[in-house]
Amino acid sequence: MRSVSIVGIGQSPVGELWNRSARHIAYDAVSAAMRDANIETASALFLGNMLSGSLLDQEHLATLVADFCGLHGIEAAKIEAACASGAAALRIGTMAVASGFHDVVIVAGVEKMTDTVGKDTTAGLASAADAEYEALHGVSFVGLNALLMQRYMYEYDVPIDAFAGFSINAHRNGANNPNAMFQEAISLADYVKAPIIATPINIMDSSPVCDGAAALVLVPTERAHEFTRGHQRGAVQILASASANDTLAVHSRKDPLFLLAAQTSCQRAFRQAGLTLDDINLFEVHDAFTIMSALSLEATGFARRGEGWRMAHEGEIGINGRLPISTMGGLKSRGHPVGATGVYQIVELVQQLTGTAGANQVRNARIGMAQNIGGSGATIVTHILGS
Amino acid sequence: MRSVSIVGIGQSPVGELWNRSARHIAYDAVSAAMRDANIETASALFLGNMLSGSLLDQEHLATLVADFCGLHGIEAAKIEAACASGAAALRIGTMAVASGFHDVVIVAGVEKMTDTVGKDTTAGLASAADAEYEALHGVSFVGLNALLMQRYMYEYDVPIDAFAGFSINAHRNGANNPNAMFQEAISLADYVKAPIIATPINIMDSSPVCDGAAALVLVPTERAHEFTRGHQRGAVQILASASANDTLAVHSRKDPLFLLAAQTSCQRAFRQAGLTLDDINLFEVHDAFTIMSALSLEATGFARRGEGWRMAHEGEIGINGRLPISTMGGLKSRGHPVGATGVYQIVELVQQLTGTAGANQVRNARIGMAQNIGGSGATIVTHILGS
Repeated sequence: MRSVSIVGIGQSPVGELWNRSARHIAYDAVSAAMRDANIETASALFLGNMLSGSLLDQEHLATLVADFCGLHGIEAAKIEAACASGAAALRIGTMAVASGFHDVVIVAGVEKMTDTVGKDTTAGLASAADAEYEALHGVSFVGLNALLMQRYMYEYDVPIDAFAGFSINAHRNGANNPNAMFQEAISLADYVKAPIIATPINIMDSSPVCDGAAALVLVPTERAHEFTRGHQRGAVQILASASANDTLAVHSRKDPLFLLAAQTSCQRAFRQAGLTLDDINLFEVHDAFTIMSALSLEATGFARRGEGWRMAHEGEIGINGRLPISTMGGLKSRGHPVGATGVYQIVELVQQLTGTAGANQVRNARIGMAQNIGGSGATIVTHILGS
Repeated sequence: MRSVSIVGIGQSPVGELWNRSARHIAYDAVSAAMRDANIETASALFLGNMLSGSLLDQEHLATLVADFCGLHGIEAAKIEAACASGAAALRIGTMAVASGFHDVVIVAGVEKMTDTVGKDTTAGLASAADAEYEALHGVSFVGLNALLMQRYMYEYDVPIDAFAGFSINAHRNGANNPNAMFQEAISLADYVKAPIIATPINIMDSSPVCDGAAALVLVPTERAHEFTRGHQRGAVQILASASANDTLAVHSRKDPLFLLAAQTSCQRAFRQAGLTLDDINLFEVHDAFTIMSALSLEATGFARRGEGWRMAHEGEIGINGRLPISTMGGLKSRGHPVGATGVYQIVELVQQLTGTAGANQVRNARIGMAQNIGGSGATIVTHILGS
């Protein structure tokens, strides 16, 4: 199996991009990544996207984006794994290069969730859950996470503002990210007075509905130098790529407060890379909701069960903390255009590992991890990158 | 790169399966393929599907199907490339095994297009075209193909019943396939009097809206014997897997009557396999509409331009003809559950290449080709298999 490296990154700003349709937003990211890697074409495009069918009446999106980017005669496929679609696409791009089927592959993620005339974005997001056994009974995706958060607070006797630290950290970091949707810091007071959207989740616990796209260029590591000549950054190697699933419906799990698939995919990734938790310098978590950050830190082993929130409460997750997370704002502040999020996480890891993260640069960042979660923990994809 | 073989196949009957939801239909195919390969689990499931988001309010379908099949802790992702989703999933499963990331992979395709309460299947199918530049103006997917057929008849001065041979052949073969939606032969008179659905396409030119699922088990060729012990069939090797795209919108193509992506992906496949057209014993074409069969035979080089229909007219495509096509009924008679079709084609090729195709067995079938088309020729995936 060939080693795979990332030699180009691109991203669109995240926000309510009412003057750009999905193809334009994807073009912005893909063309930026292609310029970054000094390439004029590629032999494949794997595109993470969740909602184009239900919100845009547009399937066949990967070929549409390839076409709009001038990439004809190549392989193109859309990869969907709910909110983990972006990282699932990266995994497939990695296999495409590792296998020798392709030498130069573009992996992108795009989501257009706002300005979707006549469509219901909340219903679209609920399609990440079990339509027949969860959504049909009226539970929204926020609602499912609210049930988990409520249960967590009950089981571990945790106060309502225990999760504030995740949101404050994300906004502090997002303030320095020119592509973030929310570029302003918030205080504990802002968190406490934030309106509730699904008890106990308030609007500061929840990532926003938004539009955005991100893209990567992958090549065999042995050829990476050809693409990074004269570049301020070097290539970043994909040290591990692993995925695991769990039951789709939360009610089917033995323990809804333990993200079994996060543990499984993380352990697989560590075995592939020959690394341990102690080797990780920063961790891009899937902070779609603050409860997901806590559960993710616990399942991956960075925190003990019931204590994930303490890492945020005690300042361990800041840029200069023990384990920086959401370093460019995370899903909460950079934004969560669902099918693109897993690719944004990797773009930001590449920035960190190549010393180009600006004001949010984590010092001596050599090895970073990203975890992208689909549904309420049903598909979890973990990547470890090294510079 | 490791060679990859198919050691298990499974399929559900195709039809209006009103008493089975998507997960049940997929389970029928996946569990049959697992029994066929004597496996109790796998490490990945790649699932071709196009319409679950728009018709079933269900994304995250691959993890849902894996969950329902008892496959937990594995990788699962849905692969979407419109009506080429099934073959696109096979390509990705092939890369997953070839790369060494996985040893035992299930590739499946499923589509549930009937009994979708409150949803518009015709609008869903139009999402294979360009939503903003084609579908928005009212052209349906059948409509696009009707424009192509009309143009073909004009350019090549071809009579209205020139295409009848494709439909008659498909139905003759489907009559012997217990899983086919339509198991009865039709005559030229049946074709001629069939109602028009979009001039000049009549109902016998068009594949049906239906439900179905098919599945494959892939392993490294060097391990295939472990899975086929005591089996009436041997394994079938994937000799080539290639994909190419074209512009999504038909109006953007220089020549709408030439399927450039069919030619490109076919030529790539022949290079990979080290074969030529003459080596192909049978060809599963993407006969969603009879015009697509003609265009596909021409672009791949089996017929001269403007003469693809003659192969059907002159009986060359029958089971005992020069190039048998649609040997188990094709999309027309077996049915076209869109995201599953590319996998059905491969299941049927495996039957032919292992001498288990029953009454429709092609004699001395050693090497077979399948081509799966997304949109009106915008994504075309070609596989060549050998026994």
